[in-house]
Amino acid sequence: MTISGTASESFRNRNRVGTKSLSDIVRLSGPSLFGVQVATKKRTGEKAVKTPTPDEVEENLRRANLPKEQSAKYHPYYQGKIEIVPRVPVRTFNDFAIWYTPGVAQPCLDIKADPNKVWTLTNKWNQVAIVTDGTRVLGLGDIGPEAGLPVMEGKALLFKYLGGVDAFPIPLATKDPEKIIETVKLITPSFGGVNLEDIAQPKCFYILQRLRKECEIAVWHDDQQGTATINLAGVINALKVVGKRIPDVAITLVGAGASNIRTAKLLIAAGAKPEHIILVDSKGIVGRHREDIEAAANAYAEKWELALVTNRGDREGGIAEAMKDADVVISAAKPGPGVIRKEWVASMAEGAILFVIANPVPEIWPWEAAEAGARVIATGRSDFPNQVNNSLGFPGIFRGTLDVRARTITDEMCIAAAEELAKVAEEKGLDETHIVPTMEEIDVFAREATAVGLKAMAQGIARVTKTRDELYRGALEMIRRAREETKSLMQDGFIRPPPP
Amino acid sequence: MTISGTASESFRNRNRVGTKSLSDIVRLSGPSLFGVQVATKKRTGEKAVKTPTPDEVEENLRRANLPKEQSAKYHPYYQGKIEIVPRVPVRTFNDFAIWYTPGVAQPCLDIKADPNKVWTLTNKWNQVAIVTDGTRVLGLGDIGPEAGLPVMEGKALLFKYLGGVDAFPIPLATKDPEKIIETVKLITPSFGGVNLEDIAQPKCFYILQRLRKECEIAVWHDDQQGTATINLAGVINALKVVGKRIPDVAITLVGAGASNIRTAKLLIAAGAKPEHIILVDSKGIVGRHREDIEAAANAYAEKWELALVTNRGDREGGIAEAMKDADVVISAAKPGPGVIRKEWVASMAEGAILFVIANPVPEIWPWEAAEAGARVIATGRSDFPNQVNNSLGFPGIFRGTLDVRARTITDEMCIAAAEELAKVAEEKGLDETHIVPTMEEIDVFAREATAVGLKAMAQGIARVTKTRDELYRGALEMIRRAREETKSLMQDGFIRPPPP
Repeated sequence: MTISGTASESFRNRNRVGTKSLSDIVRLSGPSLFGVQVATKKRTGEKAVKTPTPDEVEENLRRANLPKEQSAKYHPYYQGKIEIVPRVPVRTFNDFAIWYTPGVAQPCLDIKADPNKVWTLTNKWNQVAIVTDGTRVLGLGDIGPEAGLPVMEGKALLFKYLGGVDAFPIPLATKDPEKIIETVKLITPSFGGVNLEDIAQPKCFYILQRLRKECEIAVWHDDQQGTATINLAGVINALKVVGKRIPDVAITLVGAGASNIRTAKLLIAAGAKPEHIILVDSKGIVGRHREDIEAAANAYAEKWELALVTNRGDREGGIAEAMKDADVVISAAKPGPGVIRKEWVASMAEGAILFVIANPVPEIWPWEAAEAGARVIATGRSDFPNQVNNSLGFPGIFRGTLDVRARTITDEMCIAAAEELAKVAEEKGLDETHIVPTMEEIDVFAREATAVGLKAMAQGIARVTKTRDELYRGALEMIRRAREETKSLMQDGFIRPPPP
Repeated sequence: MTISGTASESFRNRNRVGTKSLSDIVRLSGPSLFGVQVATKKRTGEKAVKTPTPDEVEENLRRANLPKEQSAKYHPYYQGKIEIVPRVPVRTFNDFAIWYTPGVAQPCLDIKADPNKVWTLTNKWNQVAIVTDGTRVLGLGDIGPEAGLPVMEGKALLFKYLGGVDAFPIPLATKDPEKIIETVKLITPSFGGVNLEDIAQPKCFYILQRLRKECEIAVWHDDQQGTATINLAGVINALKVVGKRIPDVAITLVGAGASNIRTAKLLIAAGAKPEHIILVDSKGIVGRHREDIEAAANAYAEKWELALVTNRGDREGGIAEAMKDADVVISAAKPGPGVIRKEWVASMAEGAILFVIANPVPEIWPWEAAEAGARVIATGRSDFPNQVNNSLGFPGIFRGTLDVRARTITDEMCIAAAEELAKVAEEKGLDETHIVPTMEEIDVFAREATAVGLKAMAQGIARVTKTRDELYRGALEMIRRAREETKSLMQDGFIRPPPP
């Protein structure tokens, strides 16, 4: 997760003192902060005019703080976001003779005789470990495994509700990459996949690479692969909107952290020309001239590799120089606003595509970007159009991976997921403000799962074969069941209503 | 778990060929194998006379095989015995802003500021890891972590249904004790306790000892402590029935594996005189004379320690010599019948107490033991009186441990649990066939939890303080909720009815 929570604090404070940015929001959005309409036509020159009343300012502040306030109230009330329940009937106590001793000896012997049966006689087929060391949680930094647990439980909730996946949080009491790798390998018997989360760079690259190579089950780092997949889906559709093709465009990535490193590699795998890609980090444009990256090439192997193949025009400088004439800019840098300036956006090519995905405040406010001429603008927030949101990825991608019992998740599977996401959005009608689907649409995840499963089978890394229809119906049924089960637990009072 | 599944096979085959033992069962029990009435008066000399009809033989065979047949049919149908569901409401997709980003930053920061809050802002307070290396699963031996998973899932089911505890199976892909210890320590952040299961001796002793010392949460090895606790509860009440006191009696333990080593130590902690205890293993009576045990004293430290303090009469020989004049015999050796002979039982003291807890077939059939003069007989089976059953222990003991967030589970907490179990049975009426409660009684677990929680507080190892009433009501409510939730999931179809 690449999202800053502390900045939410500064966002509130900024608004409290009534700076210009709040009135900007309100001018554009009317009385509601949510559902902001952003002008995305190039250089319209036209500005919204309505100035907010003091009451409207208050209302917006209240809404912006609602998640934080509710979180502070609800977390101590519920004391945990998941629980474990039986999947099997307990009609009488005699049933324990089936599920436990003596009956349980039977499946044990069956698995002993044929190890593959662990996929059909236990919950392994649907189980994912959410592993973190807590070194890069949200934008909060290295807060440790215990403090990271609320995020991991939240992730488990999304895994179930959006993907029907049983994910269990396992934060680790170590920061040592070798120990993380070994521990993950040791705990795999009960899992069909592993989701790495909130592990600091550069070790996250090495850990992922080692585990992808050494595990017999799919290992995924959501901050890298998840974000890259959604970015790719957005780029595919944004390019359709502006009428360009991926091999032709110049792409600049602002920030060279886990998500942008992986995004660069995935864009290249999806057909982008590396020589047209420019990365820029806190020390400037990345390229062969960067001795500091070369010196750190051991720890940052993929970054140095990208330094060698991208930016073949040998551009130097900062974000300003990196963005000039770019067709696409994807910024995953730090919470804004003000990290990206209007004049830099204005220097981009005609039909500029701008992803500013830092949270909770994008690197530049969308309306400022629009005023500066960006045609398609995406952020990480749900209250602006085009939310680039990891939650669109991992639930469906793991659903598909688990459903074919894939041995890994390849870049091609990520691309298949991105293309399917793009296709779903396209079918619902593509324009500047509708380049990615929203997670409200249940079939998004089922279709994504289907695409991922089919690709895994085509690549020969699936343990089982299913038809497209079996994959789709199966995924849809699993996800629908998870949502209905949640609803039923709420209706029957096992999930209590929130406190007043 | 100390129960043999393979022997269930031999049990069936024995019955198939119509040996004497089946007719013995039927003679004693009438047409039903279950609910056998065993004569427990000393040397009644009277025998049941009814001989079974061929139809009755068939019916008994059918019933005896039912768990195994259903297990073979149900395990592939359900494909896993647990699942993960939300504990929190999802009213609209906006709620994810509370449970995930941006709202989730709040509890993360709260835990960062005060690490103790991980107990109130996450599910840690109710979560237990079930850890095994699969080296001693049931009576099946070293079948590995994957083949052991069905047992661990069954255990998780019991944890929830009987104790309201969220237990998650983590079988480990290593047999190395140091790696097991390290992995358990690394995965503790999300858990309030650890249940070790089905780990071979002697390493299980060392692993438990190290982890009890080095972990900040309770670590428990059910095959040792769980069995010992229930044994102690049974002994306490059996002694009441025969009118003897624990400091006065001679106790012989047949088998010196994980459960009997721990039983010996717990009996001593509960007041038994070590000099009156005799252990006997496959090589004979344990004592100072046993050079083989002394030579292995590093790996079997506790066994050698017991060799030095028990058997101060320096008795030598085998089971026959060990049982002579014993007031109490607890056999956890290997599946019978025929492991313990009638004449050895006849050589015990007047008012003999005999626990023959190997599964699925006790070391001697209860009616044979009764004929030989044993007054109180317990087995591991639910179809004979006095079932010595681990499931009476861990759900309530962990409930109490978690409810006060205890740092460990001491021997004194085990004794408190055993005494409370004994008390529950006594209140319902004590006699030769009612020395332990059955798990059908919901308040057994709540009372056990209360006793364990109170003892932990008294010993200063609890992180929170609660009244007896708070502990009891809290535990009862958690357990009742788990049962009602299971029922509700069955009624609403999320747990499907079994296949025909």
